[in-house]
Amino acid sequence: MTAVNREIHLASRPQGWPSAENFRLVETEVPKPGPGQLLVRNRYMSVDPYMRGRMNDVKSYVPPFQLDAPLDGGAVGEVVTSEAEGFAAGDWVLHGLGWREYALVDAGSARTVDPDLAPVTTYLHVLGMTGLTAYAGLLEVAGMKPGETVFVSAAAGAVGSLVGQIAKLKGASRVIGSAGSAAKVERLRALGFDAAFDYHDGPVRQSLKAAAPEGIDVYFDNVGGDHLEAAISALRLHGRAAICGMIAQYNDTEPPAAPRNLALVIGKRLTLRGFLVGDHGALRGQFVREMSGWLRDGSIGYDETVVDGIEHAPEAFLGLLRGENLGKMLVRV
Amino acid sequence: MTAVNREIHLASRPQGWPSAENFRLVETEVPKPGPGQLLVRNRYMSVDPYMRGRMNDVKSYVPPFQLDAPLDGGAVGEVVTSEAEGFAAGDWVLHGLGWREYALVDAGSARTVDPDLAPVTTYLHVLGMTGLTAYAGLLEVAGMKPGETVFVSAAAGAVGSLVGQIAKLKGASRVIGSAGSAAKVERLRALGFDAAFDYHDGPVRQSLKAAAPEGIDVYFDNVGGDHLEAAISALRLHGRAAICGMIAQYNDTEPPAAPRNLALVIGKRLTLRGFLVGDHGALRGQFVREMSGWLRDGSIGYDETVVDGIEHAPEAFLGLLRGENLGKMLVRV
Repeated sequence: MTAVNREIHLASRPQGWPSAENFRLVETEVPKPGPGQLLVRNRYMSVDPYMRGRMNDVKSYVPPFQLDAPLDGGAVGEVVTSEAEGFAAGDWVLHGLGWREYALVDAGSARTVDPDLAPVTTYLHVLGMTGLTAYAGLLEVAGMKPGETVFVSAAAGAVGSLVGQIAKLKGASRVIGSAGSAAKVERLRALGFDAAFDYHDGPVRQSLKAAAPEGIDVYFDNVGGDHLEAAISALRLHGRAAICGMIAQYNDTEPPAAPRNLALVIGKRLTLRGFLVGDHGALRGQFVREMSGWLRDGSIGYDETVVDGIEHAPEAFLGLLRGENLGKMLVRV
Repeated sequence: MTAVNREIHLASRPQGWPSAENFRLVETEVPKPGPGQLLVRNRYMSVDPYMRGRMNDVKSYVPPFQLDAPLDGGAVGEVVTSEAEGFAAGDWVLHGLGWREYALVDAGSARTVDPDLAPVTTYLHVLGMTGLTAYAGLLEVAGMKPGETVFVSAAAGAVGSLVGQIAKLKGASRVIGSAGSAAKVERLRALGFDAAFDYHDGPVRQSLKAAAPEGIDVYFDNVGGDHLEAAISALRLHGRAAICGMIAQYNDTEPPAAPRNLALVIGKRLTLRGFLVGDHGALRGQFVREMSGWLRDGSIGYDETVVDGIEHAPEAFLGLLRGENLGKMLVRV
């Protein structure tokens, strides 16, 4: 009997908010690795906001997902069969072919991870791309300096919660986060944020002003829209915004009309800078050293929201877009 | 008989577009300089777009103009009486008290200029703040490098025409300008712009795409609105926008709704940076050396639109906001 592999295909491109109908669970045969390849049994996969953009058929920084083909994204799993030097059955590897139970991975795009050094899931967030996004965006893109006030949106998410904690560890005098529920706000306080608010409780501009009456120096944007507009108003002279994501508008079908106060960038000499973590690989060594230390000594806390079963991966992704996750949204495959 | 001084006061704060009623011509006595002061007979004064912002009663990077008091701004004139060391009657000086025939200037805020080195008016633009704005914005804020493609709006204005010419002198491979009339477009071509268009001729995005089919690397923004939105679409990976002004919206009474495509800053890793020339004084020495050389050898061309008589200064300013100037708008006092 041939072993069965289950994977999630893109069945149709969403218009606006995606739904379960855009995905299809497909059974295939478990593939056989050729020379230089590994067969990996995925154990955890990541769902990330940027995947929404890849569901549109538009040119972007990553190619769009193909219809009737498996989605992809970060995953960790165990090597079942290795046809590549340097990898053996039983090794844990990090790679880019999630959304399937078994992945046929070119050895060059897999990286061994040590499950004894840190939980394997952390290589998908705190110690992985998510963590480097927070670290590089805050320190390199926004150039945060000790004594500054930092505001981060989607602060209870995987990136945002690290941004706030790294800011405190690097000497920010005040860190403010926004999130989408009272429970998340409470969690942010436990993680060491100086102030946090639920953006449903009133206009973001007012909530931010109450949390940072003297303004902010750095804004780490995961949201766009009202949050960015409020941040532009709150930024002080020579303030910087690192623009990481605009999840508030990923499902918009009409172009959004914010921020209306962009002219403030002149008088306040603000810098708004978009970035992708892929440009900041040179920081990886330094990042891993620092972050591993913080994890070991308990300076960094993190949350995971884990959904079980590849068949529920679409629900996990949709839940992420609706903000149902605390910390990193993962699927246990 | 006491000599009469005429000056322009702000009679009321404009709502939206200013008009002649917002200004008042007032006759006063010619003042007497105290110790450390100069009495200056102004000969030319500058009208600049940023003055519109100062007519509103809002906190900004410069304090608002006061009601029933003279406006101020860059001017050059001759010293009539000096009560300060280092200045003598007959000296030409540059200072900040325009909008009046006679100015009582603290010696510390006056700078002698040499009418034999360059026409005195050029200290109000090519060799002055206008020139440094173009130079610093293009080279320091946007970090233009040789071989890049540069787009500048309000390109037939005092700042814009210098931005385009400095870009060519510094090795830009292609320079594109937008302006508000066919005559201005023709002038831009004569000044060495590789392409120019009248923004009335169609959507800015289309005109820019036709002029720069492969995109742009640097945008120097004097306009905001549609121009900024079009530039964000046209900017290539790692592109930069130096945001100098947003004249298109200075007279808006409703917040403007552009740019709707701001999310592109992420995937393209764009930087949008507002700036004020006042932060770039450290470049002044280098700027004056280079610009003087370019002026001497004829590498830089410039235009002046001169209005005669202090009583017509409000009209000159209103004409500037309507784009009626070619190059620098000046008032001969």
